Amino acid sequence: MRRTRVVCFGELLLRLGAPGRELLLQSPRLDVHIGGAEANVAVSLAHFGHEVAMLGTVADNPLGAAATGELRRHGVDTAGVRAVPGRMGLYFLTTGAGHRASEVVYDRADSAFALATPHDYDWNALLAGADWLHLSGVSPALGPDAAQATIDAARRARELGVRVSFDGNFRPKLWQRWQGDAAGVLRELFACADIVFADYRDIGVVLGGEFPQEDVRERVRAAAAMAFEAFPQLRWMACTQRATLSVDHHSLGAMLLGRDGTEALAPAESVTGIVDRIGGGDAFAAGVLHGLIDGQGAEAAVRFGLAAACLKHTIPGDFNPVSVAEVEALIGEGRFDVRR
Amino acid sequence: MRRTRVVCFGELLLRLGAPGRELLLQSPRLDVHIGGAEANVAVSLAHFGHEVAMLGTVADNPLGAAATGELRRHGVDTAGVRAVPGRMGLYFLTTGAGHRASEVVYDRADSAFALATPHDYDWNALLAGADWLHLSGVSPALGPDAAQATIDAARRARELGVRVSFDGNFRPKLWQRWQGDAAGVLRELFACADIVFADYRDIGVVLGGEFPQEDVRERVRAAAAMAFEAFPQLRWMACTQRATLSVDHHSLGAMLLGRDGTEALAPAESVTGIVDRIGGGDAFAAGVLHGLIDGQGAEAAVRFGLAAACLKHTIPGDFNPVSVAEVEALIGEGRFDVRR
Amino acid sequence: MRRTRVVCFGELLLRLGAPGRELLLQSPRLDVHIGGAEANVAVSLAHFGHEVAMLGTVADNPLGAAATGELRRHGVDTAGVRAVPGRMGLYFLTTGAGHRASEVVYDRADSAFALATPHDYDWNALLAGADWLHLSGVSPALGPDAAQATIDAARRARELGVRVSFDGNFRPKLWQRWQGDAAGVLRELFACADIVFADYRDIGVVLGGEFPQEDVRERVRAAAAMAFEAFPQLRWMACTQRATLSVDHHSLGAMLLGRDGTEALAPAESVTGIVDRIGGGDAFAAGVLHGLIDGQGAEAAVRFGLAAACLKHTIPGDFNPVSVAEVEALIGEGRFDVRR
Amino acid sequence: MRRTRVVCFGELLLRLGAPGRELLLQSPRLDVHIGGAEANVAVSLAHFGHEVAMLGTVADNPLGAAATGELRRHGVDTAGVRAVPGRMGLYFLTTGAGHRASEVVYDRADSAFALATPHDYDWNALLAGADWLHLSGVSPALGPDAAQATIDAARRARELGVRVSFDGNFRPKLWQRWQGDAAGVLRELFACADIVFADYRDIGVVLGGEFPQEDVRERVRAAAAMAFEAFPQLRWMACTQRATLSVDHHSLGAMLLGRDGTEALAPAESVTGIVDRIGGGDAFAAGVLHGLIDGQGAEAAVRFGLAAACLKHTIPGDFNPVSVAEVEALIGEGRFDVRR
Amino acid sequence: MRRTRVVCFGELLLRLGAPGRELLLQSPRLDVHIGGAEANVAVSLAHFGHEVAMLGTVADNPLGAAATGELRRHGVDTAGVRAVPGRMGLYFLTTGAGHRASEVVYDRADSAFALATPHDYDWNALLAGADWLHLSGVSPALGPDAAQATIDAARRARELGVRVSFDGNFRPKLWQRWQGDAAGVLRELFACADIVFADYRDIGVVLGGEFPQEDVRERVRAAAAMAFEAFPQLRWMACTQRATLSVDHHSLGAMLLGRDGTEALAPAESVTGIVDRIGGGDAFAAGVLHGLIDGQGAEAAVRFGLAAACLKHTIPGDFNPVSVAEVEALIGEGRFDVRR
Amino acid sequence: MRRTRVVCFGELLLRLGAPGRELLLQSPRLDVHIGGAEANVAVSLAHFGHEVAMLGTVADNPLGAAATGELRRHGVDTAGVRAVPGRMGLYFLTTGAGHRASEVVYDRADSAFALATPHDYDWNALLAGADWLHLSGVSPALGPDAAQATIDAARRARELGVRVSFDGNFRPKLWQRWQGDAAGVLRELFACADIVFADYRDIGVVLGGEFPQEDVRERVRAAAAMAFEAFPQLRWMACTQRATLSVDHHSLGAMLLGRDGTEALAPAESVTGIVDRIGGGDAFAAGVLHGLIDGQGAEAAVRFGLAAACLKHTIPGDFNPVSVAEVEALIGEGRFDVRR
Repeated sequence: MRRTRVVCFGELLLRLGAPGRELLLQSPRLDVHIGGAEANVAVSLAHFGHEVAMLGTVADNPLGAAATGELRRHGVDTAGVRAVPGRMGLYFLTTGAGHRASEVVYDRADSAFALATPHDYDWNALLAGADWLHLSGVSPALGPDAAQATIDAARRARELGVRVSFDGNFRPKLWQRWQGDAAGVLRELFACADIVFADYRDIGVVLGGEFPQEDVRERVRAAAAMAFEAFPQLRWMACTQRATLSVDHHSLGAMLLGRDGTEALAPAESVTGIVDRIGGGDAFAAGVLHGLIDGQGAEAAVRFGLAAACLKHTIPGDFNPVSVAEVEALIGEGRFDVRR
Repeated sequence: MRRTRVVCFGELLLRLGAPGRELLLQSPRLDVHIGGAEANVAVSLAHFGHEVAMLGTVADNPLGAAATGELRRHGVDTAGVRAVPGRMGLYFLTTGAGHRASEVVYDRADSAFALATPHDYDWNALLAGADWLHLSGVSPALGPDAAQATIDAARRARELGVRVSFDGNFRPKLWQRWQGDAAGVLRELFACADIVFADYRDIGVVLGGEFPQEDVRERVRAAAAMAFEAFPQLRWMACTQRATLSVDHHSLGAMLLGRDGTEALAPAESVTGIVDRIGGGDAFAAGVLHGLIDGQGAEAAVRFGLAAACLKHTIPGDFNPVSVAEVEALIGEGRFDVRR
Repeated sequence: MRRTRVVCFGELLLRLGAPGRELLLQSPRLDVHIGGAEANVAVSLAHFGHEVAMLGTVADNPLGAAATGELRRHGVDTAGVRAVPGRMGLYFLTTGAGHRASEVVYDRADSAFALATPHDYDWNALLAGADWLHLSGVSPALGPDAAQATIDAARRARELGVRVSFDGNFRPKLWQRWQGDAAGVLRELFACADIVFADYRDIGVVLGGEFPQEDVRERVRAAAAMAFEAFPQLRWMACTQRATLSVDHHSLGAMLLGRDGTEALAPAESVTGIVDRIGGGDAFAAGVLHGLIDGQGAEAAVRFGLAAACLKHTIPGDFNPVSVAEVEALIGEGRFDVRR
Repeated sequence: MRRTRVVCFGELLLRLGAPGRELLLQSPRLDVHIGGAEANVAVSLAHFGHEVAMLGTVADNPLGAAATGELRRHGVDTAGVRAVPGRMGLYFLTTGAGHRASEVVYDRADSAFALATPHDYDWNALLAGADWLHLSGVSPALGPDAAQATIDAARRARELGVRVSFDGNFRPKLWQRWQGDAAGVLRELFACADIVFADYRDIGVVLGGEFPQEDVRERVRAAAAMAFEAFPQLRWMACTQRATLSVDHHSLGAMLLGRDGTEALAPAESVTGIVDRIGGGDAFAAGVLHGLIDGQGAEAAVRFGLAAACLKHTIPGDFNPVSVAEVEALIGEGRFDVRR
Repeated sequence: MRRTRVVCFGELLLRLGAPGRELLLQSPRLDVHIGGAEANVAVSLAHFGHEVAMLGTVADNPLGAAATGELRRHGVDTAGVRAVPGRMGLYFLTTGAGHRASEVVYDRADSAFALATPHDYDWNALLAGADWLHLSGVSPALGPDAAQATIDAARRARELGVRVSFDGNFRPKLWQRWQGDAAGVLRELFACADIVFADYRDIGVVLGGEFPQEDVRERVRAAAAMAFEAFPQLRWMACTQRATLSVDHHSLGAMLLGRDGTEALAPAESVTGIVDRIGGGDAFAAGVLHGLIDGQGAEAAVRFGLAAACLKHTIPGDFNPVSVAEVEALIGEGRFDVRR
Repeated sequence: MRRTRVVCFGELLLRLGAPGRELLLQSPRLDVHIGGAEANVAVSLAHFGHEVAMLGTVADNPLGAAATGELRRHGVDTAGVRAVPGRMGLYFLTTGAGHRASEVVYDRADSAFALATPHDYDWNALLAGADWLHLSGVSPALGPDAAQATIDAARRARELGVRVSFDGNFRPKLWQRWQGDAAGVLRELFACADIVFADYRDIGVVLGGEFPQEDVRERVRAAAAMAFEAFPQLRWMACTQRATLSVDHHSLGAMLLGRDGTEALAPAESVTGIVDRIGGGDAFAAGVLHGLIDGQGAEAAVRFGLAAACLKHTIPGDFNPVSVAEVEALIGEGRFDVRR
């Protein structure tokens, strides 16, 4: 049986992190991981058994080669990643603990990805054979060229019958750098999506609404209703509910809402002993997407997504290289002793 | 005063573990520890001040030399460990966190220990001067030769008046590899033991009983009664009760039951911030054994065993190199600030 | 505006610590940090934006150079640190976990600092331009010369109108080594202080009182009253209340009491996921001192001190290199998700 | 233009090496690299820009996944690598220095590759589209099944018009383990090859000749003449001449001899400051193969091969991930200052 | 006696290097050092006992703070380093070996230093009290603003009677990025210098001459003659002669030529076992400068410079933190056994 | 056959070394090895298959335990090592390279060993069963108590018929610390020795002679003649001749001279790519001692000693854990390619 082919378009980043719980450059060493919101989803889906390809642009130097090589290691096709003169986007991470929050220092301006123009991508060729296109709100926030390229990709996908998955990932600081019209651009992208990963805050940015409801889930329900009304092609909206008790201890629940009125809840998990919280949202998105691609019902899909996200919190790096069997084992048993 | 001499027979293993909480080979490095159920007990007892000797077989190469050298470092006599051409048993460990269970990949088939024949051991010589022989259910599970060697050791010890300590350590996967008669072999070993470390599940395997009681402790009591009836030489049965709230947070209690009706309970401890859970059961066994050798009462012995096991969870590696004073400090005070 | 100049007199120590949660020399590597009660305060105050100078004596070798270099890295002026032939004080640290307490093995006898005589310091020159002098009870405990030098410094400061901050830091083992009159020496130092970091146990040592009150805070109130009576120049007394639930989980509250009857409480924080507890008290002292220097009220100062101490528990090493903004962010929000 | 497709059949091994110049397990850590004679060639050719696929069998566990993932990282197609229950072949490496030779301890018996039967490979499918098949003498030495599979591959390739490259790599110890008929099996493989990487010692094994000539190159010439006579399809024979002045300093020259009488020499290079000598021969083979595929003349090809081998000695691990441009830069200039 | 005060103006860079002799990101870790041509000189001079201040601009983030902190650690005053929003210049280093040259990948475009305008520096204040200003040809190559700032500094120094030391450091790639008039700008800087570190290639760029002499030293003599003629204020010209036998083995000699006809030669040293060649030229410049400041004759100065450079090749990182005594010990004895 | 029992009396030291070729505390980490001149000999002899026991005194803390544990790991009996309150002797090592000599910073004053009194050792018991006692000139240099204990040991050995091996190891700095009569004490020790490891410089110290001969070997011959005359019990004198071409490249030859006129020379080896030179002399002493114990002739013994010393230069740490087979392989072949 043919595997579902998912293509992900976005920037590959190098994370340069302080070891363990050290402050940045407290000792003169950095641990390197590869990441990027869309790449994180790509790697998850490849480990879930799908055919996955990454699309984008990297620097034609050893750093860019390391980024694409790492994706290939996880089984992602990188033939659609351009390598051009330029620089790679970087981010420096200090992982917190207890009362000290983790901190990211971005150094991603003027990366090869951000400077690529819409003309650099041949979407007909890049989307050929794809069943799904996954995008996120990070790419269009990087500048007008990246925004246009992202919109082009989404529209062309829609025209070609490729389903579109869009993760809101609203980052105000990035939009402010170039005074971009976040609401306008994101609205165009929402207007192409079959599924959005977004909560009431994203919908508020895109559609201008306010959600005064006291209960978080009520706010999400209202936002979803507004989204389904505004975007007639939209079929699903999914999001997590996260509470941070300390840096090492979060509570994480999730919802998946359908245009047809379906509402699936994954009850909140107590996420303790957190190793690496980065990429948790992307792991959730990949998990839900897998569930839906796999034809599971909404409830199974959102539970799969939440369990995948829980596992991500235990794994160093941005990626969540876990198999379907490992996610299902967590859902099924919840036994935590050594597996021999 | 002459120190009690304990000899331990079993396989030495090399643990090759992913650093920290990384996935296996996520970065290209492995941290190495030496282990093995019986060796773990040997090291504990040596640190408790007893005269301890390891018996067994290793490969005559740098890996085998590293294993015996590490035991000597901890004060264990390794003159009784044969070094022959062959390979060392290995296991690869991925230490989990939070919702992600730790995983062991064994690569121990056809090790020098597993291939040693009963004729390779001269039990009269090896047991000379010993007060106790410690064995576990891992050795006989490795194959017919290892099973016979273990039975030979236990029987000869019994004949020589050497007391026998036996840790059930039932591992179905190992027995399945060679279709061994686990129940039959283990029954022979139980039949030689003065003390067994076993709970109702082990007794179920060995004697075929079922324990439908809702309360775990009731099941243990019933199993002990059955064991004391089946094995007239058996004087003690001890076991822990473990519940896993997450990979980093367990609850651990313990029981020690005597043929004479003695029942000693160590109330459950909340074991948090777990560093390394491997070897926890062996640390318990060594602690109880120390208590009994030391002439402490049953309650003191089981509390000592549980405290030793709690400390093991905080120490990287399979061994539990803590002193009697350190265990007693934990029992006595339970103060956790820096000791200067 | 002129920055407040604080000078700190005390010993610089090298900490040689086992990596992670390993036992000391379990693997053949030591991680090095620089510390010392007064140096820890110096580094904190420098990061809070004050002009800070360290006074003292180090060995004229690469270890002493590393210690002063590390202070300079954090912005502390080290021109007043003498480098003379001799040895550096060392301490070896095993960081505990769960049920296993951290342990310090001191190797600081006969250090260059401990052997320096009162005549080696020209206090008029060293205190020139200073607004505050910070001392602790560790220095006088190192020997008669160090005790006299500390008293000289405190008295000269008082005469020159330099305010004196004194952290009790009572260490009975150090005093016993040379049979020093702890109570007498400390009394002289308390008699020079504008602020003391001390609780009822310190006051008991110095003034001989007993504090039978059941409630800890009542004991502190009684001790403060006794101190304000005995030491007419004393204006403030501050201390923390720490409870250790496990090695990784403490509860930490704080009080600041004024001669004028002011009593400010910082409610107890649950300090989880502790990375490094060493230097927590010094971080508190620096935080309170900053608050008072900054002209904040008592309540703001004690909350600032407690928040600084909480952050210290998350940072490897003895120092607490956090900015005012970082401490205030913790007080203000208490949000623990990644900051991008 | 279509890229040349090279398929390589052989075992993937995990190298577990002592860090730096330490003895094995002198400190409790191992550095991991992936290797295997044929995989080394595959990775080189992929970095030289060819389309490369690996064929073989790995264990269906995290170690096998790491091995194939690492090949993918270097751009090698691993779709033709089977993953089945079993174990991975391992080797433990102690890297020497000065007067101390490097040492390999093999632990590769009964690996998933060695136990795979000839029926496990569908050569028609695996060779479809290939231009070249690369094999080595290591695979058939692993046991009768592996030997037959290798012969099957070579013969089927010949039938399908796929050119065959064969690296002698004679390892007497491996053949002795199963009493294999090395000469007979290797003769069958030589009889299928278009190019063999072999010197007079290999030819001596295969054809029984002796080469008493004093000059090494004369011996190689005589062996080549004998080989071209015995194997009418054979077009090229290539080999290096290595002299070891110390562990860190070798001399390395090379020859490429053609059936048509071509003789190309690459003059001996002084290879100093050796970082990792493992894989040097495979790097040479890949370099010569690239030169021939690329249509360079014999002299250019052998110089390219030798330069690639020289670079390999400077790179940690078994692979030689250098580009054509990097090899050519070495041939062209031989300037050794920093490139900015 | 007042110490000579030297101020150095230039960019601070973070070096992110592959560990040991690995390829970049071969393993996922980077070792960090701070560097920059002028900062390297600053650190050397501070270790030689001079009063040294760094001038420049860094990013107001943890990376910039790490850079200035590291300079302070080495005793350099960083009060004149501005911290502003922006990014730090980075470079990625792969250290070569044997036949494989080291490679630098720069990622320094649009750094906070490069974007600083001439108006950001108040030269009268920054040069107050200085005896020497050290500059290099790297700064003006970074862009028109940096070029103008460097020229301003040099001219103002000349007006204020501060001596100017200028290291040519010609980097064509940097000038090409912004099409800068290298010859014109460098000429203006040469025209302010009391001493230039330059050889015939630099003079060729600046004055357009060609130096066809076969002997390198003749070329240097001719270039010096031309320079002394063109720049009447110039008193000294110094340079090294380097030959690279392999990446780990260089030959290094040096010359110092005076306007008065002085010619001092330091005979070529065989530099073997090279640990880190970066910063060798800066170490030489600092050594010569120290010799001249110290009032040594030309021959002593150039020998001191060459010995300092030789030591630099043995020290990881860009800095050369060696004392006068250590350099003199090398000149004096050349004994290489352990010093106890 | 009974193995020869050798007992070694001396101090165990902890070496705290900068990693790789870094300067001390350039990065905040130290690598730890155990050493000590006599312990180094003990470990070598244990690896050569002899029964070896260490005698001495360590601190009763984790550092002392690590030192004795490490000796046990290498097969040395540590039952005769006392553990008492106190401190361990330390030394800090910076390993040089090229032109930069390695440097040792000692921190060994007032160690538990140095403070032990002659009455702390019961020589009759400690020497029981011994065939040889090995001592060195380091122990008596540590203070009057250590000097007396060493003399006691040597004299008692002589009385008991235990042969005495003495390594001069003259360290003027240590003797100066306590104004000890080096010549007098060493004379007493030479007067007890069957073999001394010493060259003309040691003999000059002990017997006051001068050796003006130009040829080093002539000086050694003259010194040996003087020693055999002065010390009638002395049978052998052995020493190396070392020349240091650079830190990484030495030349090392050796001589063994007998009272009976035997003179055995081991021609100088070029020792390149030096990893760790510390302990080279001890490795030589152990090698010669092994040769003599083994009944080899003088020439075989001195060649064995030199080959052992060459191997030591390639091994990190103070110990030389190589087997007889490994030393003989070096003597026999001198082949330096990988051993598989």
